[in-house]
Amino acid sequence: MKLVCKKSDLITGINIVMKAVSSKTTMSILECILIDATEGVIKFTANDMELGIETKVEGEIIEAGSIAIDAKIFSEIVRKLPDNDVVIEVNDETKANITCENSKFNILVKSADDFSYLPEIEKKDKITLSQFALKELIRQTIFTVNDADKNKILTGELFEVMGNRLKVVALDKFRIAIRNMELKEDYGNFKVLVPGKSLNEISKILNGGVDDEVNIYFTSNHILFEFDETKVVSRLIECSNYFDTDKMISNDYKTKITINKKEMANCIDRATLLIKEGDKKPVFLTIKDTEMELSINTFIGSMDESIPIVREGSDMMISFNPKFLIDILRVLDSEEVNIYFTNPKAPCFIRDDENSYIYVVLPVVQ
Amino acid sequence: MKLVCKKSDLITGINIVMKAVSSKTTMSILECILIDATEGVIKFTANDMELGIETKVEGEIIEAGSIAIDAKIFSEIVRKLPDNDVVIEVNDETKANITCENSKFNILVKSADDFSYLPEIEKKDKITLSQFALKELIRQTIFTVNDADKNKILTGELFEVMGNRLKVVALDKFRIAIRNMELKEDYGNFKVLVPGKSLNEISKILNGGVDDEVNIYFTSNHILFEFDETKVVSRLIECSNYFDTDKMISNDYKTKITINKKEMANCIDRATLLIKEGDKKPVFLTIKDTEMELSINTFIGSMDESIPIVREGSDMMISFNPKFLIDILRVLDSEEVNIYFTNPKAPCFIRDDENSYIYVVLPVVQ
Repeated sequence: MKLVCKKSDLITGINIVMKAVSSKTTMSILECILIDATEGVIKFTANDMELGIETKVEGEIIEAGSIAIDAKIFSEIVRKLPDNDVVIEVNDETKANITCENSKFNILVKSADDFSYLPEIEKKDKITLSQFALKELIRQTIFTVNDADKNKILTGELFEVMGNRLKVVALDKFRIAIRNMELKEDYGNFKVLVPGKSLNEISKILNGGVDDEVNIYFTSNHILFEFDETKVVSRLIECSNYFDTDKMISNDYKTKITINKKEMANCIDRATLLIKEGDKKPVFLTIKDTEMELSINTFIGSMDESIPIVREGSDMMISFNPKFLIDILRVLDSEEVNIYFTNPKAPCFIRDDENSYIYVVLPVVQ
Repeated sequence: MKLVCKKSDLITGINIVMKAVSSKTTMSILECILIDATEGVIKFTANDMELGIETKVEGEIIEAGSIAIDAKIFSEIVRKLPDNDVVIEVNDETKANITCENSKFNILVKSADDFSYLPEIEKKDKITLSQFALKELIRQTIFTVNDADKNKILTGELFEVMGNRLKVVALDKFRIAIRNMELKEDYGNFKVLVPGKSLNEISKILNGGVDDEVNIYFTSNHILFEFDETKVVSRLIECSNYFDTDKMISNDYKTKITINKKEMANCIDRATLLIKEGDKKPVFLTIKDTEMELSINTFIGSMDESIPIVREGSDMMISFNPKFLIDILRVLDSEEVNIYFTNPKAPCFIRDDENSYIYVVLPVVQ
């Protein structure tokens, strides 16, 4: 194999597939990038068996071939080469010469035969949306996913397609994040549970363009995202017994407030300064007339601050884990948000009038 | 005590004195900033007993007084306040009210009486140099200092004043860094050994201006740096038995090369990619004709690269710990550097013609 690529093109390709390189594994092949130039194009692939990414890399193939190379070493070497053409040459399948200007590296490589290629995905159930929309959907829900939760269902996000509607749900034991989105056409009905970790990595690769599309293909075991010159395949989580979130959501409320999002976020941010790690102190919200007072009291000291609100319904005193509120306020784009309360022991709802987003948060009951 | 200060002025002051706040201590007073407004100006002081910093802060004193406040909490609160006037008020010496716009904090504080003020320094032996010069002196030598070395002498830098000359020396077991500088006037003869840790912190506070001066006062136990509105006092290390570095330096050589500094640094930087942590592989320099070949061979792979040089004297093969060379090349400002070699077992010298800098590095002898 002999390839000539620009340093910058190599780096682009490495950065994309790097997201699927195993960092903790005893199988050294999972720490490799597959460089495949057997079919007239240069493709980089990485696959940690949960998530697999393949992307095309610009360059010239002087001699076809394929090898697997340690991702970290390859990445570090390319990054430190001069900004010029890089020649990658393999003669005996055990060593690669990487040459750029006067600099010559000779690195141990592995045979491409040992590498796990991406699984073939049947392209039947499909939706199309913009990279922007997908990136936003992930950003606005992913914070409720706990990758380390023992309950597998809580480590994923539900992607549910119902005709021309897409609903994304993520939840943990104290809160639910839901995003509803209208699709351009009717795609049928199907749902899958995608590992949060995979979504996190995909979100980093998406350029986020409004005019750039992503095709998403659903099968019973895998989900495939296709965009730009890149394919991302993730395993799915079994979801037949997923929660019926419709039953958890109510439209009744006793108090509704409209509040400046940034003011509330900054205020909670300040309050959390008084909480030392491991200490579980709630913030108290006191809604009265046209103000919400936010207060906290810890062994470091106390803080209180008033924020003007527009109120509907009765007065309310309720307390929350400040992190849960701030996580939500951080991902919302609107200047003002509506928060609905029923009573101090019932969850509050943060949602817009169209239900394009719905967040449910359990209060701290003292 | 009651003060009104701009948030930005508070942050400037906190950032300066923060460098002398103890991070690991069982004495909570050492984690505090002293706010002293008893003498018509607002002064912040921190003192970890090795290094003490005092700086003036702009602001209005409505009621004189002084308190000690936990530096980390104070710093975090001020940073997160709105960008406006901040009122700091203490009524009973145990709690401070910090108010900004609608936000009110109430924080536990300590009595100023428990705080260790900076020692009084006799202002006799003194030199003056620009902030730029001091910052450069430190940057170009500090990397040879090992704060954790059991041999106390190796944890400091020698500042030696000889008439109108300042010589700064730092060394470890394998290398020496020397900077010589001409002073504006004749200041007498004295030398002290300043802890590298203190110099590191001072260097971060110096604005580095060519026209801004630093006055440095030397006593037998302390060194005082005065600049802008700030005083920094550091304890000294006993230096009566410091090395006689003049004896370690020779002007003889068999080979002299002149090489592009950046090319050599980048090349060594690439070579070090092949060294895994804990592995002690040298780089081999082969000086022949008008080229220096740099090569390395580890269990990851090998690299070699040629760099054009101007050579005087005989051919040479010698090997070095790559880190030692790169540390030096990184701090030098000239485009080209001269390196002098005697034989593969003798130290090499990197120095300019005026001896304004001299670096000595021991080779790796195989």
